[in-house]
Amino acid sequence: MTINSESILNDVEKIRKNAPLVHNITNYVVMNTTANALLALGASPVMAHALPEVEEMAGIAWALVINIGTLSDAWIEAMFKAAKKATIRQIPIIIDPVGVGATQYRTRTARELIQASAPSIIRGNGSEIMALCEQDITTKGVDSTSASDQAIDSARALALEFDCVVCITGKIDYIVSQEAMIQVKNGHAMMPRVTGLGCTATALCGAFAAVNQDFDKAAAHAMAVMGIAGEMAAQNAQGPGTLQINFIDSLYQLSETHIKELFND
Amino acid sequence: MTINSESILNDVEKIRKNAPLVHNITNYVVMNTTANALLALGASPVMAHALPEVEEMAGIAWALVINIGTLSDAWIEAMFKAAKKATIRQIPIIIDPVGVGATQYRTRTARELIQASAPSIIRGNGSEIMALCEQDITTKGVDSTSASDQAIDSARALALEFDCVVCITGKIDYIVSQEAMIQVKNGHAMMPRVTGLGCTATALCGAFAAVNQDFDKAAAHAMAVMGIAGEMAAQNAQGPGTLQINFIDSLYQLSETHIKELFND
Amino acid sequence: MTINSESILNDVEKIRKNAPLVHNITNYVVMNTTANALLALGASPVMAHALPEVEEMAGIAWALVINIGTLSDAWIEAMFKAAKKATIRQIPIIIDPVGVGATQYRTRTARELIQASAPSIIRGNGSEIMALCEQDITTKGVDSTSASDQAIDSARALALEFDCVVCITGKIDYIVSQEAMIQVKNGHAMMPRVTGLGCTATALCGAFAAVNQDFDKAAAHAMAVMGIAGEMAAQNAQGPGTLQINFIDSLYQLSETHIKELFND
Repeated sequence: MTINSESILNDVEKIRKNAPLVHNITNYVVMNTTANALLALGASPVMAHALPEVEEMAGIAWALVINIGTLSDAWIEAMFKAAKKATIRQIPIIIDPVGVGATQYRTRTARELIQASAPSIIRGNGSEIMALCEQDITTKGVDSTSASDQAIDSARALALEFDCVVCITGKIDYIVSQEAMIQVKNGHAMMPRVTGLGCTATALCGAFAAVNQDFDKAAAHAMAVMGIAGEMAAQNAQGPGTLQINFIDSLYQLSETHIKELFND
Repeated sequence: MTINSESILNDVEKIRKNAPLVHNITNYVVMNTTANALLALGASPVMAHALPEVEEMAGIAWALVINIGTLSDAWIEAMFKAAKKATIRQIPIIIDPVGVGATQYRTRTARELIQASAPSIIRGNGSEIMALCEQDITTKGVDSTSASDQAIDSARALALEFDCVVCITGKIDYIVSQEAMIQVKNGHAMMPRVTGLGCTATALCGAFAAVNQDFDKAAAHAMAVMGIAGEMAAQNAQGPGTLQINFIDSLYQLSETHIKELFND
Repeated sequence: MTINSESILNDVEKIRKNAPLVHNITNYVVMNTTANALLALGASPVMAHALPEVEEMAGIAWALVINIGTLSDAWIEAMFKAAKKATIRQIPIIIDPVGVGATQYRTRTARELIQASAPSIIRGNGSEIMALCEQDITTKGVDSTSASDQAIDSARALALEFDCVVCITGKIDYIVSQEAMIQVKNGHAMMPRVTGLGCTATALCGAFAAVNQDFDKAAAHAMAVMGIAGEMAAQNAQGPGTLQINFIDSLYQLSETHIKELFND
């Protein structure tokens, strides 16, 4: 299985045409930047976490993105409730296990959420995917200390255990499922210096999964678009500040020409 | 009733001179960007939502802005408490019913807040104003699916029911009250692609209402400044990322010349 | 005691080499911007406030930053728990008493936190430091209404009472302890128009204290870097929007040449 510039463009155009509503229960740090990324790409984001409304919001969304970056007990309850509704409606659920391995609270919550919700896609950095699989690893905060390729075996094990697509992001992104493995090689070295670009990658998985039920490809398309937009953004960036802003512009500008020129197959 | 470049400038100068403290109980997505917009214009924002302190904070503020974008039960209680104090002190209350119609929780909360607090100004997009009036409409998340002019009848009904100014934002902004209707035609097509510019419009209503007790005009001035700053920002924007940043710069730079040249009466 | 461009550079290089994990329990308004500032400088930020995990997170961090900008009861409990762990581990604790004096809730919480946690550094603006010391002052929201030099006596009293370094930021920054007073004169007049740059100053104190146990100097180095990066950022800023973005770029670019040319001793 593979992806190409035509398949990427096809999904981008579907997102722009349909503006799928992506329901995010995400962390405080990235709410603004991930909403802006989804809007710039052409999706319609909504951030809602209150227990009395998550079920209804998940009931009108095209995809549900759950990110445990700044979790607390009340939010966890809402995450489970939203996931249950999304499962009933058979809309894709994307989970971002931010900081798994840094605390037992995160590791336990992420695994319980994944077990209960049967996600379509799990997206994390190398350390997170390894910690999610091998539960006794301790990681350093939310930044990865492992290269993405070190986590491939863990990703395979998770894909098998939970019957889902596992997306490891890093210098090379690996999209792993029981059926396939896709590598995406776009991106720029300065991207990890912008907070929450990993969370943005997860949110974009939501937008792509909303319009493409082949979740291997949806995740790979999302990673390709992240990487291409990152490369576009870096061309005129003086540092992580301008990179973050240019990245949003790039998602908005992204055209067939950009994809064809920059997609690194 | 109408507004003109002199009346806009007059209020802007009052804000810059007095730096009115605007107390915001608002959503997580826009806290940073609305605080920056208020600061750039010349007001003094404070974000505070804790039950033990909202009364005291509303007790020193010049205006109270309540935005239900990411509400939860604990925050709702604080919103009511702050609104009560603001009512006693007769400072303007501005309400933004974000996402009303998307969930019953939002619709019910927004209507109860409005009933209890007798706001000076309600600001929403077309879908939100219609859903607030006709309570059985379902809207799509937080983005409007209706043009602002479709909501004029609903705005009139709300203005009558709650004796307040209703501000519908969209391609044309309509400021509706029992006495008048003002149209504001400034703005730029890319603005809806930046998350939370609607929330910023509401926050600016707070700053203008803090210095101008004629709330029709205060709301219209705020919308004119939003639109003018948006047009200034778009001149050098490559997408929604740079638009968001330039918009803050434009609020800071905004001069008599900009207002006179760009105000679209 | 004094600092110079070599001592500043030395700490910056230590941060870049070690990427110390800085655990922040901070306010919603600045989570994104302070995480980006820490990342741009070379530190590794983590934002975590949940009661079940703060102890574990403080258990792997190099420094703990507590900021009461948008506090609530649940978060206060987590702040105390994290501070207790940090005290046991003898890692530096930095406290930012945002808005102290605006409400009794903030004043009381800040003083109780300081008493319980024995912080290494307290950083605030003039009004906040005065209100923290003279508890019956009422301030205006979160923006300072006092020049930093008006707060020197209060800072001295606090430094004596709590045996810590007190850092007053303003046009001139004063780093006050029982042993010394250091003045830092870098910075730019537009910086107070960007929300949360004070909170960023506090977060950077965390990064510097993580690599330098001489907390007078750590705080002074942090303030010098804030000021230098602010001056670099202002060179091409059209307003507070671009200033905020350029500031992040400047922390990333900051070199020996910048420090030597711009440090104002």
